[in-house]
Amino acid sequence: MLRRLRLVVSYDGRAFAGWQSQASGNTIQDLLEAAFLRIAGQKVRVHGAGRTDAGVHALAQSAHADVPGARLSPDRWGAALNAFLPLTIRIMSSRFVKDAFHARFSAKGKVYRYRIWNDCTLPPLELGRAWHVAGPIDREKMRREAGLFVGKHDFASFAANRGTAAGDTIRAIDSVKLRQGIKHLELDISGDGFLYKMVRLIVGGLVRSSSGKSADGELEERLKNPKRLMAKARFVAPAHGLYLVRVRY
Amino acid sequence: MLRRLRLVVSYDGRAFAGWQSQASGNTIQDLLEAAFLRIAGQKVRVHGAGRTDAGVHALAQSAHADVPGARLSPDRWGAALNAFLPLTIRIMSSRFVKDAFHARFSAKGKVYRYRIWNDCTLPPLELGRAWHVAGPIDREKMRREAGLFVGKHDFASFAANRGTAAGDTIRAIDSVKLRQGIKHLELDISGDGFLYKMVRLIVGGLVRSSSGKSADGELEERLKNPKRLMAKARFVAPAHGLYLVRVRY
Repeated sequence: MLRRLRLVVSYDGRAFAGWQSQASGNTIQDLLEAAFLRIAGQKVRVHGAGRTDAGVHALAQSAHADVPGARLSPDRWGAALNAFLPLTIRIMSSRFVKDAFHARFSAKGKVYRYRIWNDCTLPPLELGRAWHVAGPIDREKMRREAGLFVGKHDFASFAANRGTAAGDTIRAIDSVKLRQGIKHLELDISGDGFLYKMVRLIVGGLVRSSSGKSADGELEERLKNPKRLMAKARFVAPAHGLYLVRVRY
Repeated sequence: MLRRLRLVVSYDGRAFAGWQSQASGNTIQDLLEAAFLRIAGQKVRVHGAGRTDAGVHALAQSAHADVPGARLSPDRWGAALNAFLPLTIRIMSSRFVKDAFHARFSAKGKVYRYRIWNDCTLPPLELGRAWHVAGPIDREKMRREAGLFVGKHDFASFAANRGTAAGDTIRAIDSVKLRQGIKHLELDISGDGFLYKMVRLIVGGLVRSSSGKSADGELEERLKNPKRLMAKARFVAPAHGLYLVRVRY
């Protein structure tokens, strides 16, 4: 009898070609499925709450898989998977859930964090863990403009792949929190769903604007008139500053 | 004319065979001297405030070197060195100082940090950055025993290489601060000087004791009777949890 196993997965995105399975392998999904095959002796499909791109980290990605339930207790599934996974991917917790649970379709939202190191030199221990922005950032402007994204908007202008159906680029952002260190900034963005590269396009826009590299009011204009400004130069913040913090259910 | 250049150097210890020059190369000192040779066109000797072992990180190691002063402004020296160094070593600042300044002999003390991850699973982003201690730690016991080290003591029992001259294992610890997260601990140890592997032996002793793996009172006994307990099993905490935070002048 198959049981539905829910996994909380953490990984260092630098080592992998993203979450989603690829022919060339070396994705987190591929490595998880390979580990399941070793343990279960049969193909087990892993369903993630969402894809993360190459270089994007996860503190707590969420996934589920239907496994031969009687074989191991839920805790032992996590331990067994960890034994076959590289140390750069860890199952942080594993438990059986009702069959109605689906890592992606049951998700109510996600929280992402974006880290920016704002100083002339990037400390070696921040390499691959933050976007290095050497020039000055107007933090007050960033805080103000970050607030613009809260609420329900058409994020077409902040998505790499825009959908074709009307309204399918509408998402709601619950909160954008800016935490400041002396030399670094962290943006926590919580929302009901995110379009492809949406967080990185938002952060790229915020950094360009607060560095004085785009016209005043451009971000607001892109939110209000998502279709009109499509052709404008947009900036995608690098993958290695982005962390999937958690998936909300 | 030679000018004395002071450097603040940060590095990710995992990539290197420690600070001090070795025949096999790949030490931070070797790489700094190679970069100086490229810029200055002559051999420049780099003097560090102290050695760090392979795997030990530095937020702000201190060093000095005598360089052909007229060639570059002090800021430019740092930028030029960074151009020839790997991204895992960065010159965080560089400035000219009086000839009387010596990175090692002028130092009044150092601050080290030791990070412990105390949970059953080590998150991938903590790999190589903290000592993973899976079992329970009595935090109150650790805080109490950490306080024992403050003050002037003979640290012979907490040193890998014990000196032969009388009194040369005496050091003064100004403070030991324990910071706690939900799943991690950080010990900041400030002192006038540290013997070889002293911080790692202190932390190893604290973790063993607060995990119930050594007899009550053993740490205190080792501090009070440094020579008598020499033969006792000691535990060296792993290098990758240790950070040289700064050198005090």
